[in-house]
Amino acid sequence: MGKNKKLTDDWESKKLDLVAGGRLLQDGLVYRQNISVRSFEIGGDRKMSFGALLNHLQDTALNQGIITGLLVDGFGSTQEMSRNNLIWVVSTLHVVVDRYPTWTEVVEVDTWMYASGKNGLGRDWIFRDSKTGETLANATSVYVMMNRETRKLSKIAKEMRDELEPYVMDCERPIINKDGRKIQKLDVSAADQRCTGLSPGWKDMDINQHVSNVKYIDWILESVPHSLMERYDLNAMTLEYKKECDMDSVLQSLSKRVSEGSTYSFSASKVVEFDHLLRLENGREILRGRTVWKLRDTNNRVNSYIY
Amino acid sequence: MGKNKKLTDDWESKKLDLVAGGRLLQDGLVYRQNISVRSFEIGGDRKMSFGALLNHLQDTALNQGIITGLLVDGFGSTQEMSRNNLIWVVSTLHVVVDRYPTWTEVVEVDTWMYASGKNGLGRDWIFRDSKTGETLANATSVYVMMNRETRKLSKIAKEMRDELEPYVMDCERPIINKDGRKIQKLDVSAADQRCTGLSPGWKDMDINQHVSNVKYIDWILESVPHSLMERYDLNAMTLEYKKECDMDSVLQSLSKRVSEGSTYSFSASKVVEFDHLLRLENGREILRGRTVWKLRDTNNRVNSYIY
Repeated sequence: MGKNKKLTDDWESKKLDLVAGGRLLQDGLVYRQNISVRSFEIGGDRKMSFGALLNHLQDTALNQGIITGLLVDGFGSTQEMSRNNLIWVVSTLHVVVDRYPTWTEVVEVDTWMYASGKNGLGRDWIFRDSKTGETLANATSVYVMMNRETRKLSKIAKEMRDELEPYVMDCERPIINKDGRKIQKLDVSAADQRCTGLSPGWKDMDINQHVSNVKYIDWILESVPHSLMERYDLNAMTLEYKKECDMDSVLQSLSKRVSEGSTYSFSASKVVEFDHLLRLENGREILRGRTVWKLRDTNNRVNSYIY
Repeated sequence: MGKNKKLTDDWESKKLDLVAGGRLLQDGLVYRQNISVRSFEIGGDRKMSFGALLNHLQDTALNQGIITGLLVDGFGSTQEMSRNNLIWVVSTLHVVVDRYPTWTEVVEVDTWMYASGKNGLGRDWIFRDSKTGETLANATSVYVMMNRETRKLSKIAKEMRDELEPYVMDCERPIINKDGRKIQKLDVSAADQRCTGLSPGWKDMDINQHVSNVKYIDWILESVPHSLMERYDLNAMTLEYKKECDMDSVLQSLSKRVSEGSTYSFSASKVVEFDHLLRLENGREILRGRTVWKLRDTNNRVNSYIY
């Protein structure tokens, strides 16, 4: 417990105005924050969109860094990282949504970090119904370090490991089992759907001059048939980031149904799965992904939503 | 004051979980809510984006409706409106931003309604620095009623006026003077900049099957030179909505610099103004707008932002 003493003292002495009321639990290792689903975060079904959910993954992770004092430079880096011009980048992300919260619902988010292998930082999240404690969503992610100038990946040096140590949980496992199946590189000639000529705008870049995660999700979802989205909910998404892209990149988004059945006919399926590939026009892989879609519960329709 | 008695009683008896801690002031006529600027609401300069600010205009307006019980059906309509299949649509919007709040800053938003002419509902907002009380932004808007099926505008009938009366301020003036100059219809042949083939996606539609306001803003900003945005802040925007558009619409965004000087050279100007026009490809007007841009204070740069 001693290792966390300084952390909690630091935290107590900070006067941070996180209006969301975020706080530290379990000797400062778990960050908890309530979020209210806003009118601008919902889709036509009045449920929080997948993109909005992803926004809160990033936001609560950063808030934990701010409230503990671990992040110092506003780029999400620690003091040692900042000194060495290093930033965090997402390597893998796996999200499972059991139920999307609806407009005005209050969601309790817990998040924590742990060591992931020699050179990765794991982070998990649980989204719960703040009233009933029902689990709404789980997510798990691995971050690695990248040099901000050279854009090359970096090992986690001892001084950074020591710096992180008081803030990370003593566990090596994500809260959810990652989808164990390896995502094969999608055979381009076999793709059912493709969108081409995709390019990020200036407003799609985040503070580290990456294309924001939510933009990647948009591109992936653009290659999924709308007829699917009308009847199925996105239940799970797995992403493996292979390479950065920048404002000048021109991308293709390809997808292929991997569960049994045709891409355009879902009538007999309760679950439909797709493999995804985002690549540059020269063929270089940017991202591999898998999405799992579940037939929507028709008792839970738009029109049944009344305050 | 008597007319507000029922309102505040109703409000007290509600157990609404607005985590943002919104509350009613001035006999229930003013709604106040603190908002914290989130990591996903900022641009590369770490300041809240104009689009995010607009999101909170809509959100606080809806929250006032929920907390007072005036809104009943989740479409932003009152009981009488819902019975008559009517919804609110924005007719004009005028926003002035003196200073954009930065990431993690807490902003206090006040909003209230008042009668605007015979068939309009006015709504004003003030955004303040929650610590110093400094005014950050003002906004004023006029809403009118539209039939949800026929999409035709409607008068405000007596029963709806009576229903609204306990909730509206006894004033007829917006908090900021609207830009008094009439926005002329932009002469298409004289436009400096144009973007064509713009079309909303399914995710750009709001709960009333309108194209969301933020999408309109995106389209307007796409027709402004990026060289301007790099050095100027959007100080004010005035929008006059002329006609709805839907998912099948294909639009053009046109703009013309109306302040002195060339569209592509801003070096001598502290303030630059543009007129804007969004129209269908057949020429039908969707929206007229004006934007005012101010030379950015170079002492207030990204790199000076430290926690």
